[in-house]
Amino acid sequence: MIKLFEYNWQVRNEWFDWCATVAEEELMKKRTGGLGYILPTLYHIVAVEYGWICGGIQQQQVFIPSFEEVASLQQVKDFSARCHKELAPIVYDWNASLEERVMIDITDDGEEEHHTYGEVMRHVIAHEIHHMGQLSVWAREVGKKPVSANFIGRGLFGK
Amino acid sequence: MIKLFEYNWQVRNEWFDWCATVAEEELMKKRTGGLGYILPTLYHIVAVEYGWICGGIQQQQVFIPSFEEVASLQQVKDFSARCHKELAPIVYDWNASLEERVMIDITDDGEEEHHTYGEVMRHVIAHEIHHMGQLSVWAREVGKKPVSANFIGRGLFGK
Repeated sequence: MIKLFEYNWQVRNEWFDWCATVAEEELMKKRTGGLGYILPTLYHIVAVEYGWICGGIQQQQVFIPSFEEVASLQQVKDFSARCHKELAPIVYDWNASLEERVMIDITDDGEEEHHTYGEVMRHVIAHEIHHMGQLSVWAREVGKKPVSANFIGRGLFGK
Repeated sequence: MIKLFEYNWQVRNEWFDWCATVAEEELMKKRTGGLGYILPTLYHIVAVEYGWICGGIQQQQVFIPSFEEVASLQQVKDFSARCHKELAPIVYDWNASLEERVMIDITDDGEEEHHTYGEVMRHVIAHEIHHMGQLSVWAREVGKKPVSANFIGRGLFGK
Protein backbone atom coordinates (compact mmCIF):
# COMPACT_ATOMS: atom_id res chain seq x y z
CA MET A 1 0.00 0.00 0.00
CA ILE A 2 2.68 2.48 1.07
CA LYS A 3 4.74 1.89 -2.10
CA LEU A 4 1.81 2.88 -4.31
CA PHE A 5 1.45 6.13 -2.36
CA GLU A 6 5.18 6.76 -2.76
CA TYR A 7 4.79 6.10 -6.48
CA ASN A 8 1.95 8.61 -6.70
CA TRP A 9 3.86 11.28 -4.80
CA GLN A 10 6.92 10.81 -7.00
CA VAL A 11 4.87 10.92 -10.21
CA ARG A 12 2.95 13.97 -8.94
CA ASN A 13 6.17 15.88 -8.28
CA GLU A 14 7.42 14.97 -11.74
CA TRP A 15 4.21 16.42 -13.16
CA PHE A 16 4.84 19.62 -11.20
CA ASP A 17 8.31 19.76 -12.77
CA TRP A 18 6.77 19.06 -16.15
CA CYS A 19 4.27 21.90 -15.67
CA ALA A 20 7.16 24.31 -15.05
CA THR A 21 8.44 23.56 -18.56
CA VAL A 22 5.24 24.54 -20.41
CA ALA A 23 3.54 27.89 -20.94
CA GLU A 24 1.22 28.75 -18.04
CA GLU A 25 -1.78 29.15 -20.36
CA GLU A 26 -1.45 25.47 -21.35
CA LEU A 27 -2.08 24.52 -17.71
CA MET A 28 -5.41 26.36 -17.76
CA LYS A 29 -6.50 25.59 -21.31
CA LYS A 30 -9.83 23.76 -21.58
CA ARG A 31 -9.38 20.14 -22.71
CA THR A 32 -11.60 17.13 -23.32
CA GLY A 33 -12.33 14.67 -20.52
CA GLY A 34 -11.71 14.47 -16.80
CA LEU A 35 -11.71 17.83 -15.04
CA GLY A 36 -10.82 19.48 -18.33
CA TYR A 37 -7.68 21.37 -17.24
CA ILE A 38 -4.17 20.31 -16.23
CA LEU A 39 -3.58 22.46 -13.13
CA PRO A 40 -7.03 21.89 -11.58
CA THR A 41 -6.45 18.14 -12.02
CA LEU A 42 -3.28 18.36 -9.94
CA TYR A 43 -5.11 20.45 -7.33
CA HIS A 44 -7.95 17.90 -7.33
CA ILE A 45 -5.79 14.84 -6.66
CA VAL A 46 -4.14 16.64 -3.74
CA ALA A 47 -7.50 17.74 -2.29
CA VAL A 48 -9.04 14.27 -2.66
CA GLU A 49 -6.07 12.49 -1.05
CA TYR A 50 -6.00 14.97 1.82
CA GLY A 51 -9.77 14.88 2.31
CA TRP A 52 -10.01 11.10 2.46
CA ILE A 53 -6.94 10.50 4.62
CA CYS A 54 -6.85 13.41 7.05
CA GLY A 55 -10.55 14.28 6.96
CA GLY A 56 -11.91 10.77 6.47
CA ILE A 57 -9.65 8.17 8.04
CA GLN A 58 -8.07 10.47 10.59
CA GLN A 59 -11.32 12.39 11.24
CA GLN A 60 -9.45 15.67 11.53
CA GLN A 61 -11.02 19.01 10.76
CA VAL A 62 -9.50 19.76 7.38
CA PHE A 63 -9.47 23.04 5.51
CA ILE A 64 -9.43 22.53 1.76
CA PRO A 65 -9.07 25.75 -0.22
CA SER A 66 -11.04 26.14 -3.42
CA PHE A 67 -9.00 25.91 -6.61
CA GLU A 68 -9.38 29.66 -7.09
CA GLU A 69 -7.51 30.22 -3.84
CA VAL A 70 -4.44 28.30 -5.03
CA ALA A 71 -4.70 28.91 -8.77
CA SER A 72 -1.04 28.93 -9.76
CA LEU A 73 1.52 26.18 -10.20
CA GLN A 74 3.51 27.35 -7.17
CA GLN A 75 0.44 27.55 -4.98
CA VAL A 76 -0.78 24.08 -5.98
CA LYS A 77 2.74 22.75 -5.27
CA ASP A 78 2.68 24.44 -1.85
CA PHE A 79 -0.80 23.04 -1.17
CA SER A 80 0.47 19.58 -2.11
CA ALA A 81 3.51 19.94 0.17
CA ARG A 82 1.37 21.11 3.12
CA CYS A 83 -1.08 18.23 2.71
CA HIS A 84 1.73 15.73 2.24
CA LYS A 85 3.36 16.79 5.50
CA GLU A 86 0.14 16.06 7.35
CA LEU A 87 -0.91 12.87 5.62
CA ALA A 88 2.38 11.06 4.96
CA PRO A 89 2.78 10.02 8.64
CA ILE A 90 -0.68 8.46 8.51
CA VAL A 91 0.19 6.54 5.35
CA TYR A 92 3.51 5.39 6.81
CA ASP A 93 1.69 4.15 9.92
CA TRP A 94 -0.46 1.89 7.76
CA ASN A 95 -0.58 -1.76 8.73
CA ALA A 96 -2.87 -4.64 7.83
CA SER A 97 -4.74 -4.45 11.14
CA LEU A 98 -6.33 -1.19 9.91
CA GLU A 99 -7.86 -2.79 6.79
CA GLU A 100 -11.28 -3.50 8.25
CA ARG A 101 -11.77 -0.39 10.38
CA VAL A 102 -14.74 1.60 9.24
CA MET A 103 -15.08 5.31 8.63
CA ILE A 104 -18.35 7.15 8.12
CA ASP A 105 -18.58 9.54 5.20
CA ILE A 106 -21.39 12.06 4.83
CA THR A 107 -22.05 12.48 1.12
CA ASP A 108 -23.07 15.75 -0.55
CA ASP A 109 -26.67 14.50 -0.36
CA GLY A 110 -26.35 14.16 3.41
CA GLU A 111 -26.33 10.37 3.29
CA GLU A 112 -24.16 8.30 5.57
CA GLU A 113 -21.78 5.92 3.83
CA HIS A 114 -19.55 3.41 5.56
CA HIS A 115 -16.17 2.55 4.08
CA THR A 116 -13.35 0.42 5.39
CA TYR A 117 -9.98 2.11 5.69
CA GLY A 118 -8.60 -0.42 3.20
CA GLU A 119 -11.21 0.63 0.66
CA VAL A 120 -10.44 4.32 1.17
CA MET A 121 -6.69 3.85 0.82
CA ARG A 122 -7.07 1.96 -2.48
CA HIS A 123 -9.59 4.50 -3.72
CA VAL A 124 -7.09 7.28 -3.19
CA ILE A 125 -4.31 5.32 -4.94
CA ALA A 126 -6.41 4.47 -8.01
CA HIS A 127 -7.86 7.99 -8.16
CA GLU A 128 -4.49 9.66 -8.61
CA ILE A 129 -3.15 7.13 -11.14
CA HIS A 130 -6.34 7.50 -13.19
CA HIS A 131 -6.05 11.28 -13.38
CA MET A 132 -2.34 11.07 -14.25
CA GLY A 133 -3.37 8.92 -17.20
CA GLN A 134 -5.56 11.79 -18.37
CA LEU A 135 -2.65 14.23 -17.99
CA SER A 136 -0.53 11.97 -20.20
CA VAL A 137 -2.98 12.45 -23.09
CA TRP A 138 -3.16 16.20 -22.57
CA ALA A 139 0.65 16.39 -22.43
CA ARG A 140 0.79 15.05 -25.99
CA GLU A 141 -1.77 17.69 -27.00
CA VAL A 142 0.64 20.28 -25.65
CA GLY A 143 3.30 18.60 -27.80
CA LYS A 144 5.38 17.39 -24.85
CA LYS A 145 6.38 13.95 -23.64
CA PRO A 146 4.39 12.99 -20.53
CA VAL A 147 5.92 11.93 -17.22
CA SER A 148 6.62 8.18 -17.19
CA ALA A 149 3.90 6.14 -15.51
CA ASN A 150 6.20 3.16 -14.98
CA PHE A 151 6.25 1.87 -11.45
CA ILE A 152 9.31 -0.26 -12.15
CA GLY A 153 12.57 1.62 -12.44
CA ARG A 154 11.78 4.39 -9.94
CA GLY A 155 13.96 3.06 -7.14
CA LEU A 156 10.89 2.53 -4.95
CA PHE A 157 12.23 -0.85 -3.88
CA GLY A 158 15.62 -1.64 -2.46
CA LYS A 159 15.82 1.71 -0.74
CA MET B 1 -2.94 -6.14 -3.62
CA ILE B 2 -5.63 -8.57 -4.74
CA LYS B 3 -8.40 -5.96 -4.42
CA LEU B 4 -6.63 -3.64 -6.84
CA PHE B 5 -6.43 -6.46 -9.38
CA GLU B 6 -10.13 -7.16 -8.88
CA TYR B 7 -10.80 -3.46 -9.40
CA ASN B 8 -8.85 -3.50 -12.66
CA TRP B 9 -10.60 -6.60 -13.95
CA GLN B 10 -14.01 -5.12 -13.15
CA VAL B 11 -13.18 -1.78 -14.78
CA ARG B 12 -11.71 -3.56 -17.82
CA ASN B 13 -14.89 -5.57 -18.34
CA GLU B 14 -16.94 -2.39 -18.05
CA TRP B 15 -14.75 -0.87 -20.77
CA PHE B 16 -15.43 -3.92 -22.95
CA ASP B 17 -19.17 -3.33 -22.40
CA TRP B 18 -18.67 0.36 -23.17
CA CYS B 19 -16.87 -0.53 -26.41
CA ALA B 20 -19.87 -2.58 -27.51
CA THR B 21 -22.00 0.59 -27.38
CA VAL B 22 -19.86 2.64 -29.78
CA ALA B 23 -19.24 2.33 -33.50
CA GLU B 24 -16.38 -0.07 -34.25
CA GLU B 25 -14.45 2.59 -36.20
CA GLU B 26 -14.22 4.70 -33.02
CA LEU B 27 -12.27 1.85 -31.37
CA MET B 28 -9.64 2.03 -34.13
CA LYS B 29 -9.58 5.77 -34.73
CA LYS B 30 -6.18 7.42 -34.20
CA ARG B 31 -6.13 9.59 -31.07
CA THR B 32 -3.61 11.71 -29.21
CA GLY B 33 -1.47 10.20 -26.44
CA GLY B 34 -0.82 6.73 -25.07
CA LEU B 35 -1.02 3.97 -27.64
CA GLY B 36 -3.27 6.18 -29.76
CA TYR B 37 -6.23 3.81 -30.16
CA ILE B 38 -8.91 2.47 -27.81
CA LEU B 39 -8.96 -1.24 -28.73
CA PRO B 40 -5.16 -1.67 -28.91
CA THR B 41 -4.98 -0.09 -25.43
CA LEU B 42 -7.28 -2.78 -24.06
CA TYR B 43 -5.24 -5.45 -25.84
CA HIS B 44 -2.06 -3.92 -24.42
CA ILE B 45 -3.13 -3.96 -20.77
CA VAL B 46 -4.13 -7.61 -21.09
CA ALA B 47 -0.83 -8.55 -22.77
CA VAL B 48 1.26 -6.65 -20.20
CA GLU B 49 -0.54 -8.15 -17.21
CA TYR B 50 -0.26 -11.65 -18.67
CA GLY B 51 3.38 -11.20 -19.66
CA TRP B 52 4.52 -9.97 -16.25
CA ILE B 53 2.51 -12.41 -14.16
CA CYS B 54 2.53 -15.67 -16.11
CA GLY B 55 5.72 -15.06 -18.11
CA GLY B 56 7.62 -13.08 -15.48
CA ILE B 57 6.62 -14.09 -11.96
CA GLN B 58 5.47 -17.59 -12.87
CA GLN B 59 8.22 -18.11 -15.49
CA GLN B 60 5.82 -19.93 -17.77
CA GLN B 61 6.26 -20.06 -21.52
CA VAL B 62 3.63 -17.59 -22.65
CA PHE B 63 2.26 -17.05 -26.11
CA ILE B 64 1.15 -13.47 -26.65
CA PRO B 65 -0.54 -12.88 -30.00
CA SER B 66 0.15 -9.65 -31.84
CA PHE B 67 -2.69 -7.13 -31.83
CA GLU B 68 -3.35 -7.93 -35.50
CA GLU B 69 -4.16 -11.52 -34.55
CA VAL B 70 -6.93 -10.45 -32.15
CA ALA B 71 -8.01 -7.20 -33.79
CA SER B 72 -11.71 -7.14 -32.91
CA LEU B 73 -13.58 -6.37 -29.70
CA GLN B 74 -14.72 -9.98 -29.32
CA GLN B 75 -11.22 -11.34 -29.89
CA VAL B 76 -9.64 -8.95 -27.38
CA LYS B 77 -12.34 -9.92 -24.87
CA ASP B 78 -11.59 -13.61 -25.50
CA PHE B 79 -7.85 -12.95 -25.16
CA SER B 80 -8.52 -11.18 -21.85
CA ALA B 81 -10.67 -14.06 -20.59
CA ARG B 82 -8.03 -16.66 -21.56
CA CYS B 83 -5.26 -14.73 -19.82
CA HIS B 84 -7.43 -14.07 -16.78
CA LYS B 85 -8.12 -17.76 -16.33
CA GLU B 86 -4.39 -18.45 -16.21
CA LEU B 87 -3.25 -15.54 -14.11
CA ALA B 88 -6.09 -15.06 -11.60
CA PRO B 89 -5.06 -18.12 -9.52
CA ILE B 90 -1.54 -16.67 -9.25
CA VAL B 91 -2.91 -13.32 -8.08
CA TYR B 92 -5.24 -15.00 -5.57
CA ASP B 93 -2.29 -16.99 -4.20
CA TRP B 94 -0.49 -13.75 -3.41
CA ASN B 95 0.76 -13.33 0.13
CA ALA B 96 3.24 -10.98 1.76
CA SER B 97 5.97 -13.63 1.89
CA LEU B 98 6.31 -13.27 -1.90
CA GLU B 99 7.09 -9.53 -1.79
CA GLU B 100 10.86 -9.84 -1.84
CA ARG B 101 11.27 -12.76 -4.23
CA VAL B 102 13.19 -11.75 -7.29
CA MET B 103 12.46 -12.40 -10.95
CA ILE B 104 14.88 -11.84 -13.81
CA ASP B 105 13.63 -9.98 -16.84
CA ILE B 106 15.52 -9.87 -20.12
CA THR B 107 14.85 -6.49 -21.72
CA ASP B 108 14.52 -5.89 -25.47
CA ASP B 109 18.19 -4.79 -25.41
CA GLY B 110 19.16 -8.19 -24.00
CA GLU B 111 19.96 -6.75 -20.58
CA GLU B 112 19.15 -8.61 -17.39
CA GLU B 113 16.97 -6.73 -14.94
CA HIS B 114 16.03 -7.92 -11.48
CA HIS B 115 12.64 -7.05 -10.01
CA THR B 116 10.96 -8.14 -6.82
CA TYR B 117 7.56 -9.77 -7.20
CA GLY B 118 6.09 -6.93 -5.14
CA GLU B 119 7.44 -4.40 -7.62
CA VAL B 120 6.05 -6.33 -10.58
CA MET B 121 2.58 -6.70 -9.05
CA ARG B 122 2.33 -2.96 -8.34
CA HIS B 123 3.68 -2.14 -11.79
CA VAL B 124 0.89 -4.17 -13.38
CA ILE B 125 -1.76 -2.52 -11.19
CA ALA B 126 -0.62 1.04 -11.91
CA HIS B 127 -0.13 0.28 -15.61
CA GLU B 128 -3.76 -0.65 -16.18
CA ILE B 129 -5.23 2.22 -14.14
CA HIS B 130 -3.03 4.68 -16.03
CA HIS B 131 -4.22 3.46 -19.43
CA MET B 132 -7.85 3.47 -18.30
CA GLY B 133 -7.36 7.15 -17.47
CA GLN B 134 -6.37 7.70 -21.09
CA LEU B 135 -9.48 5.84 -22.27
CA SER B 136 -11.62 8.16 -20.15
CA VAL B 137 -10.40 11.18 -22.14
CA TRP B 138 -10.91 9.43 -25.46
CA ALA B 139 -14.43 8.37 -24.38
CA ARG B 140 -15.39 12.04 -24.09
CA GLU B 141 -13.95 12.62 -27.56
CA VAL B 142 -16.34 9.94 -28.79
CA GLY B 143 -19.08 11.89 -27.00
CA LYS B 144 -19.79 9.16 -24.45
CA LYS B 145 -19.53 9.02 -20.67
CA PRO B 146 -16.48 6.98 -19.60
CA VAL B 147 -16.58 4.00 -17.26
CA SER B 148 -16.37 5.12 -13.63
CA ALA B 149 -12.87 4.92 -12.17
CA ASN B 150 -14.14 4.97 -8.60
CA PHE B 151 -12.76 2.20 -6.44
CA ILE B 152 -15.32 2.89 -3.73
CA GLY B 153 -18.85 1.76 -4.47
CA ARG B 154 -17.94 -1.31 -6.56
CA GLY B 155 -18.75 -3.87 -3.90
CA LEU B 156 -15.12 -5.00 -3.81
CA PHE B 157 -15.25 -5.10 -0.03
CA GLY B 158 -17.72 -6.89 2.16
CA LYS B 159 -18.18 -9.63 -0.41
